[in-house]
Amino acid sequence: MNTLKVQLGERSYPIYIDSGVLSDSARLNRHIKGRQVLVISNTTVAPLLMDRVCASLDPSLKVSQVLLPDGEEHKTLGVLEQIFDKALEDNHNRSTTFLALGGGVVGDMAGFAAASYQRGVNFLQIPTTLLAQVDSSVGGKTGVNHPLGKNMIGAFYQPQAVFIDPDVLDSLPDREYAAGLAEVIKYGLICDPAFYEWLQHHRDDFVARDKAVLSEAIKRSCAAKARVVAEDEREGGVRAILNLGHTFGHAIEAAQGYGSWLHGEAVSAGMVLAARLSVNQGWITDAEVARLVQWLEAMSLPTSPPKDMSAATWTEHMLRDKKVVDGRLRLVLLAQIGEARIVDDLPRSELEAFMATFSSA
Amino acid sequence: MNTLKVQLGERSYPIYIDSGVLSDSARLNRHIKGRQVLVISNTTVAPLLMDRVCASLDPSLKVSQVLLPDGEEHKTLGVLEQIFDKALEDNHNRSTTFLALGGGVVGDMAGFAAASYQRGVNFLQIPTTLLAQVDSSVGGKTGVNHPLGKNMIGAFYQPQAVFIDPDVLDSLPDREYAAGLAEVIKYGLICDPAFYEWLQHHRDDFVARDKAVLSEAIKRSCAAKARVVAEDEREGGVRAILNLGHTFGHAIEAAQGYGSWLHGEAVSAGMVLAARLSVNQGWITDAEVARLVQWLEAMSLPTSPPKDMSAATWTEHMLRDKKVVDGRLRLVLLAQIGEARIVDDLPRSELEAFMATFSSA
Repeated sequence: MNTLKVQLGERSYPIYIDSGVLSDSARLNRHIKGRQVLVISNTTVAPLLMDRVCASLDPSLKVSQVLLPDGEEHKTLGVLEQIFDKALEDNHNRSTTFLALGGGVVGDMAGFAAASYQRGVNFLQIPTTLLAQVDSSVGGKTGVNHPLGKNMIGAFYQPQAVFIDPDVLDSLPDREYAAGLAEVIKYGLICDPAFYEWLQHHRDDFVARDKAVLSEAIKRSCAAKARVVAEDEREGGVRAILNLGHTFGHAIEAAQGYGSWLHGEAVSAGMVLAARLSVNQGWITDAEVARLVQWLEAMSLPTSPPKDMSAATWTEHMLRDKKVVDGRLRLVLLAQIGEARIVDDLPRSELEAFMATFSSA
Repeated sequence: MNTLKVQLGERSYPIYIDSGVLSDSARLNRHIKGRQVLVISNTTVAPLLMDRVCASLDPSLKVSQVLLPDGEEHKTLGVLEQIFDKALEDNHNRSTTFLALGGGVVGDMAGFAAASYQRGVNFLQIPTTLLAQVDSSVGGKTGVNHPLGKNMIGAFYQPQAVFIDPDVLDSLPDREYAAGLAEVIKYGLICDPAFYEWLQHHRDDFVARDKAVLSEAIKRSCAAKARVVAEDEREGGVRAILNLGHTFGHAIEAAQGYGSWLHGEAVSAGMVLAARLSVNQGWITDAEVARLVQWLEAMSLPTSPPKDMSAATWTEHMLRDKKVVDGRLRLVLLAQIGEARIVDDLPRSELEAFMATFSSA
């Protein structure tokens, strides 16, 4: 068993990473408090994994299930309410445990529901997509989207434990697999040059979905995220580097309509934009961007934004980003490969001119 | 200026209590961070006070307003969304300040919105009802109701400061004034026998709405609440005593439909029920209950529950209470006048028999 720990004082928690951890009944039950469990999943994941998870739960527990519709476009306050409805219909009390079984959308919604139900109940994560395993299940960011912006409504709420089983990725569609890899290479880019080189070296293994390589990548990604989150839980400073490519990516997602581009796909294109802007600052080279683009293209990830986004659309969506502080947009760029730099003094005219070069609208 | 402090480490905050504090521009602006303010009020309070509050704000601030419909029945996730809509339409960013101007419903909803908007923004409270001034604006409980239970969805989220101006109560309807007094006498009952005697002594002054007596009562109530909250912010233990009368009261509110009974009215009847049940335990006397009932009746507060609630209705609503832990109902009773006692081993049959004596359904 590989166990990482997210160090957050009294909110510290373990991340278990191992083949078969989903069926590790003793470990799972050890983290359940109270006598009730609400398993929150979606209509895609539940037919594949719900029975196995429920079979791992202590038979004396009162277990309820709620299945959400699948997809980022359903990550709304309205759908969130379905979780509260089920919890109250089945009389779940303040000592219940909410268990998220699914990808990032399920985890984010289940986490916000756990943060808000009776002002906070126990919460466990079983992420079932690569993106959720390396990113969204770790760090306590939860929430839902608003038509005017992604993740605009939510809470910082840490789980009691995260259970990552790489085996569940066997059934993950190629497009979702690739979307997860975008977040994996992000860790290399922002804070771990050795990991970045290792990822480049294993490019073909990732294309082939080699399991041992993938497991190692999950571990190193979670470890990187845990380090950053431990340093800055509520994103007062360094945690912002985790958003490399995300300001651009969120604008793409919002402008195209949630669910059209996968989050990881938008981040992939967004990271390339951030890299090119870093070249403009004289910090990294065109050759380094080309090498990044080659890796992402090998994974069939997009490396440029949709051409139909006008400069005005970019500005509108980026200024609504959570990283805007008093009208100043904070961007994460690359000081070098393996080192992020937060920039909040880029003239708006320069940014708009840069965005215009990608637009034929 | 009377200043109390709620001692919660890095989440500590001041409560300012004084005539005219609403127009104390320097004090108000000192607690605003960022360059944006969203004032959240309702359609009853805004015509009376919005202009005065906005005139106190630094003219360089970008101020938005959102007016919610008035009444407990509008304390829902759907209405909460109106706050997010306005904040996003006006491009409020993570450094904005949400300012609640209104009674308990406005404060609870504005607080939950502040806790959830972009995962948490600055929050100030200007409570405009007696109940909000002595109870809901202090302590960080925020949230909305669900059709199946009161305050079932919310967060613990502390404001940065609370501004209490007793003058604003001049326009408060008698029924709302009385409802606030129910929470005032609660503090005497649960933890301050000297305050209880003082309240009894000043009974006629409260009926006459004597301002000096009322100001003193607000101060002592806030001080009592601040002490309890400082000891137990997230209601792991002693904070539960603040719920005297509330388990019964919430059941009344839910069964009658939110907005039919005022919260303080339901708490008034609930406290009498708790007191009578305390007599049954041999802890207080019938004469003490009669004295409490006389005081509440002098304020025109209800002292018995609606007769049309069946024993089954009571059980159904009380078991959905947040204070139910693994099927055991925790009740706040009175060990003596001025000392609450939390009870979780009352046989359900005894409770049901007790409730049945109040029902003609």
